[in-house]
Amino acid sequence: MEYRRAKDQESDEVSQKDIESFDRRPLSNTAATSSLSTAGLKSKNSWKLKSIVTLALTLLTSSQAILIVWSKRAGKYEYSVTTANFSVEALKCLLSLVALYRTWNSQGVTEDNRLTTSFDEVSVYPIPAMLYMVKNLLQYYIFAYVDAPAYQILKNLNIISTGVLYRIILKKKLSEIQWAAFILLCAGCTTAQLNPSSDHVLQTPIQGWAMAIVMALLSGFAGVYTEAIIKKRPSRNINVQNFWLYIFGMLFNLVAICVQDFDAVMNKGFFHGYSFITVLMILNHALSGIAVSMVMKYADNIVKVYSTSVAMLLTAIVSVFLFGFHLSLAFFLGSTVVSVSVYLHSVGKPQQQK
Amino acid sequence: MEYRRAKDQESDEVSQKDIESFDRRPLSNTAATSSLSTAGLKSKNSWKLKSIVTLALTLLTSSQAILIVWSKRAGKYEYSVTTANFSVEALKCLLSLVALYRTWNSQGVTEDNRLTTSFDEVSVYPIPAMLYMVKNLLQYYIFAYVDAPAYQILKNLNIISTGVLYRIILKKKLSEIQWAAFILLCAGCTTAQLNPSSDHVLQTPIQGWAMAIVMALLSGFAGVYTEAIIKKRPSRNINVQNFWLYIFGMLFNLVAICVQDFDAVMNKGFFHGYSFITVLMILNHALSGIAVSMVMKYADNIVKVYSTSVAMLLTAIVSVFLFGFHLSLAFFLGSTVVSVSVYLHSVGKPQQQK
Repeated sequence: MEYRRAKDQESDEVSQKDIESFDRRPLSNTAATSSLSTAGLKSKNSWKLKSIVTLALTLLTSSQAILIVWSKRAGKYEYSVTTANFSVEALKCLLSLVALYRTWNSQGVTEDNRLTTSFDEVSVYPIPAMLYMVKNLLQYYIFAYVDAPAYQILKNLNIISTGVLYRIILKKKLSEIQWAAFILLCAGCTTAQLNPSSDHVLQTPIQGWAMAIVMALLSGFAGVYTEAIIKKRPSRNINVQNFWLYIFGMLFNLVAICVQDFDAVMNKGFFHGYSFITVLMILNHALSGIAVSMVMKYADNIVKVYSTSVAMLLTAIVSVFLFGFHLSLAFFLGSTVVSVSVYLHSVGKPQQQK
Repeated sequence: MEYRRAKDQESDEVSQKDIESFDRRPLSNTAATSSLSTAGLKSKNSWKLKSIVTLALTLLTSSQAILIVWSKRAGKYEYSVTTANFSVEALKCLLSLVALYRTWNSQGVTEDNRLTTSFDEVSVYPIPAMLYMVKNLLQYYIFAYVDAPAYQILKNLNIISTGVLYRIILKKKLSEIQWAAFILLCAGCTTAQLNPSSDHVLQTPIQGWAMAIVMALLSGFAGVYTEAIIKKRPSRNINVQNFWLYIFGMLFNLVAICVQDFDAVMNKGFFHGYSFITVLMILNHALSGIAVSMVMKYADNIVKVYSTSVAMLLTAIVSVFLFGFHLSLAFFLGSTVVSVSVYLHSVGKPQQQK
């Protein structure tokens, strides 16, 4: 659970080295998001960029879950999750600043990479962080109706909500085959996670369903909203955009620390219970958060959903070798469906992309 | 198991009333099989015919499984399965003759509907029946390596083998999206059948896998071969074609009776243990066998696979109301995948059909 919660809070970000090389490419909003079929160098560059950030996100997300299992084998979590989340936000903020500093040194301060901002630009930045906070609060209440394994199953509703909100809010078109692929992605991921006790998710009371749907909508909305914010100013340096996102991420996590772990932090200290693995996990979360942000800038939420879904399957496969996990038949079937979905998504591109 | 065995032996056939109305339409091989997009009355008629036979097959196959459950509630099978299979073949043969008799009365005996045949025409007819017999023999040996529930899962390999052999032997083209749909159909059907003990199918020894694959190939080959036989002479009356198929079906089932149930039949009589439900089941098997044959003549093996798969899902849903069965989460996920597969198969038609 902790891992999920921490993970959900970063749908925004910046990776130092990656940024270095991507920095000055004036990728337009549409060129970065849309079809690969448009010929031309710009599109080729955009395709390359998209592939790199997608791969980075997939690998980082996969190793994320593996670190969790690893840290669990080493014992129980002894640190407070809220301080870890805050540390992730702070680290991302720091990485954005370092990247910005290097950009300023090489290219000087320009309109696009200056840190100062207008109220108009920054006023929307707290919204994603706020949405995630509401969602995380709801998470405490949903467990009155749904247990943890059933919640893992219900979380796949995020896939559908992201697709629907992506269509409605960003007004991006998915072809019919891509919609079919999206339904398959959701069904495939759920199938891959089936276990003998999964069936009791069907006994979830109506309140549980309602809350799961609201949470999926909040999470989908936060993701799509972040994409909208980042893409609204395509020429703006991603590190500046991330810096402001992370500043509000830190703020809202500070609120969470005060609400949940104030006493513990006061008595035992902020970093109580941190181990080497905890530090590794924070580093990984920060980097994968940055990768998410890159995907938002140069690709889109649909790519994000696909890459985290594939990461989930990769994690399970790697866990077989690392931890001797057994793969179920349901996992093979779900993986097959997810693979076909990825294939269909790529062949099913709309004919005329706007 | 009995039901499956009986069912597998009829991939050929004729329905009295249906035949009446379809009798004299000179449907060409390609017109009946291929795309609905070709305009014209002929194509429209072929589409109508294809829909009717597909619907008939789906409904008959659904009710088949329901009759099985029903008969099981009434107690155990007391009749011998081989005699029931023989009765099904004999009934189909009789129905073909009745339909032919009425055709002769209304249209006279023509080159296309005469019962007499050449060695060249009839020589290939025993092959499907023989293939099914070999497959049914193998079924006794596979249970040394695989138990019955695992076998039900492995039977879904039939879907893939039918698709592959359909492509290789009949040289019919499926588009890439239709292939994707076919893989999804197999994964979806398997998912829908998952239960908590399904996982041990993964422990199937290599011999079990090999036999399951051989059986899938035999069954797929028999189906595709039957289609090839029936379509080779598109103007030939389907009842004549079925008559000869069923004659050999009877012969091979007679062999099976002698090998397996000779003593029982000799001591207790041929129809020992037959109940009203048994008679209903034989009637249903005969009619759905005839529907399969119609689908082979006016549509193809791919349509057959889709309609029997959808029938499997319909059966489960109807069983909820009839027998109070519970549907699993895996069933919902599998049904979703199958539905998307049906959709993709229909939108994914190859652009230029040969």
